[in-house]
Amino acid sequence: MSFLDAEFFQPLLAALATGEDNQIQIAASSFNAADLADFIEAHPDSGIRLLSALPTEQGGKVLGYIGPATQTLIAQQLPTRSLTELVTAMPSDERADFFQLLDERKQHSLFQSLASKEREDLRRLASFEEGTAGALMSSDYAMISTGVTASTAIDLLRKTAPDKETIYHAYVVGGNHTLLGAVSLRNLITATPSASVNDLIATGLVTATTDTPQEEVARLISRYDLLALPIVDHHNRLVGIVTYDDAMDAAEAEATEDMHKGATVGKLTGTLRDASPFSLYRSRVQWLVILVFANIFTGAGIAYFEGIIAEHIALLFFMPLLVASAGNAGAQSATLMVRGMATGDVTVTDWGRLLGKETLVATGLGLTMAAAVSVVGLLRAGPEIATVVAVTMIVVVMVGSLIGMLLPFLLDKLKFDPATASTPLITTIADVSGVLIYFSIATALLDIS
Amino acid sequence: MSFLDAEFFQPLLAALATGEDNQIQIAASSFNAADLADFIEAHPDSGIRLLSALPTEQGGKVLGYIGPATQTLIAQQLPTRSLTELVTAMPSDERADFFQLLDERKQHSLFQSLASKEREDLRRLASFEEGTAGALMSSDYAMISTGVTASTAIDLLRKTAPDKETIYHAYVVGGNHTLLGAVSLRNLITATPSASVNDLIATGLVTATTDTPQEEVARLISRYDLLALPIVDHHNRLVGIVTYDDAMDAAEAEATEDMHKGATVGKLTGTLRDASPFSLYRSRVQWLVILVFANIFTGAGIAYFEGIIAEHIALLFFMPLLVASAGNAGAQSATLMVRGMATGDVTVTDWGRLLGKETLVATGLGLTMAAAVSVVGLLRAGPEIATVVAVTMIVVVMVGSLIGMLLPFLLDKLKFDPATASTPLITTIADVSGVLIYFSIATALLDIS
Repeated sequence: MSFLDAEFFQPLLAALATGEDNQIQIAASSFNAADLADFIEAHPDSGIRLLSALPTEQGGKVLGYIGPATQTLIAQQLPTRSLTELVTAMPSDERADFFQLLDERKQHSLFQSLASKEREDLRRLASFEEGTAGALMSSDYAMISTGVTASTAIDLLRKTAPDKETIYHAYVVGGNHTLLGAVSLRNLITATPSASVNDLIATGLVTATTDTPQEEVARLISRYDLLALPIVDHHNRLVGIVTYDDAMDAAEAEATEDMHKGATVGKLTGTLRDASPFSLYRSRVQWLVILVFANIFTGAGIAYFEGIIAEHIALLFFMPLLVASAGNAGAQSATLMVRGMATGDVTVTDWGRLLGKETLVATGLGLTMAAAVSVVGLLRAGPEIATVVAVTMIVVVMVGSLIGMLLPFLLDKLKFDPATASTPLITTIADVSGVLIYFSIATALLDIS
Repeated sequence: MSFLDAEFFQPLLAALATGEDNQIQIAASSFNAADLADFIEAHPDSGIRLLSALPTEQGGKVLGYIGPATQTLIAQQLPTRSLTELVTAMPSDERADFFQLLDERKQHSLFQSLASKEREDLRRLASFEEGTAGALMSSDYAMISTGVTASTAIDLLRKTAPDKETIYHAYVVGGNHTLLGAVSLRNLITATPSASVNDLIATGLVTATTDTPQEEVARLISRYDLLALPIVDHHNRLVGIVTYDDAMDAAEAEATEDMHKGATVGKLTGTLRDASPFSLYRSRVQWLVILVFANIFTGAGIAYFEGIIAEHIALLFFMPLLVASAGNAGAQSATLMVRGMATGDVTVTDWGRLLGKETLVATGLGLTMAAAVSVVGLLRAGPEIATVVAVTMIVVVMVGSLIGMLLPFLLDKLKFDPATASTPLITTIADVSGVLIYFSIATALLDIS
């Protein structure tokens, strides 16, 4: 099912054609916010018309789902007054992200027109570094004080909890906003109405601080199956929450970034479909050029052994498959490690145990590959060169695998992102070492005149 | 913070040392199920003691968090009676997964000892193919009939909704279990107690069928920020739900699988830390051997051009950096496409538009790389070879990029997983074509005697 189907949006298109707000609102009410956002992205002109016809609350929600490129367009085209209303209705975390997109002049004028509560909130949320819990968190959550009854708490939730992600938990705070615990709506409705929330509090909450990295936030929410993770400052004062849906988005974005890094593609803004050719070029060119220069070493290695190559030109035939095997085995180990470290399945302290296992696995792989390649060697170049090729294969597969395994740990130790141990980098290292190992073994084993 | 910290689990260890169920229960009550599961995995012996001391409901939940290796151990060591109690208390989806781990004899004896409700449920959930919504779904959800009042519905939720993921929505079904809509606890508590649920129903729910792939399920839950996705059969009868937490786990597992595929690592059971050396060997050897044989073509390409190589041995120096650049550029495009297709940002219908953009980007990359490498060419081998190298660079970067971009689409069209367009496969194709292109251009441009 394509959500951009003309048929799917038919009722909406028909209502827009009438030009009546009322008709548009009725048609829009049967669509999800995410689908309306898609529609607006695909048809920005009628989209802006749609957005200004929607009830403010729905409009704010839809605006939060729209991608950065179209959001920027909307900010340029809507009059400040309508924009202010929509922005006020946005979820607080989406609002902060939206604000970052605007140019300074627009930020200033919008900021002035917001109510002081939203202004304060924006200022606070905008102060956190991207990629941290602070930048991901929302200030839309319900809060109750100790001592109230269950029925008072339910009333309070009913009135103040702004949306579905937050109505199901109320955080209990003491003096100075210190987080004491949480009560769930589930416990509140099961309790007798006159019960004190003090008896219903769940303590020992899993929390994070504003500077916790977003991948760690996603990991905590996923590990403990939370609906929302409370975020506290360094004095254990509640400052916001991260909801599971934002954590899912963050986890997806992190996985995408790690995969891109694994192929030496730098950070992209927006999706592949929306990215401009220049931003794609910029995200790719840097490592490509670095690796060209790294590969000069491989060329130099070959040039160094020109003598033996000229004498045994048959050796050249086996060079690609030997260095490629080293690179492929290395890419496998590096990818296993990098992903294991990203998901938290593997920690730096495991390296010793994993080194033993990797050595075993790599030996097995090397022997299998040597057997396969020695048949080719015998058929094509006789027993002498077959021996050189088989021995080289065992060594290069082991060297490639161990480099692939150890480099991510080393990078992590040196405070680099382990994902920098990308497949192209491993392949390049494997190329250089493969050439050197191959021709060194050949020099040692072959009868050189 | 390491969760396996002796200090973290100190109260639990102390309670286990007393050997009293009561003490163990008190100590365990302050830990999360996920943490208790970690403890049991790290200390299987005291873990089994702990598990049998826990209240059944908590024990069932903890058992659901334990990894397959330790689950198998527990199934072997616990007497059938305790095991039956725990398994009955497990969430229905975890129970079905657990059951799949057991050998046939154990499955049979456990199956016999379960109550008929759980037996029926197991039989049904076990019938769905792995990787589909059916295999991911749970049958723990609340259901109400049309026409009841809001207060009756709240009472029903209070009594039957088994856990936090499911208490917040009740599905409204008509005759024959047909899904009509859902009411949220939020709407129920805001409504007047005597209101009919018919007036509170949200219709037009996003749903999936039992055979929807799990990545699509995760995408729907993430896109629409759902707490749970109702799963229906082909007659729109409600058969289960997938909750957001299971969707998060599935999305993470899918991302891991895709990354592994991107480096030609096959399916692994369990985490990298737990996997046996043999299962690691098995997941890696297949593609390594396939690619060795594919690389014979590269060797054959070089052998074919032995004549021109012998005459211009300086050409060899540039071979690694040219073929590596083709492979690296190809790995970048392939990774961008494969991930874009996995997240749904790119669909097959986009290929034409993306081809135009990729051609532009690849031309830019090729020109930049050619400029970089022609300096090296001039310094090392003079203007003639520098020209050959620069022209080759433009061609191979473009060819590599376009192969990397188009192969995932082609694989998808042919009903293969686009992730099969792994970096090592792209590198191998780039190697073969790089060698052929390089020496063909050299033959054409250089003065061959």
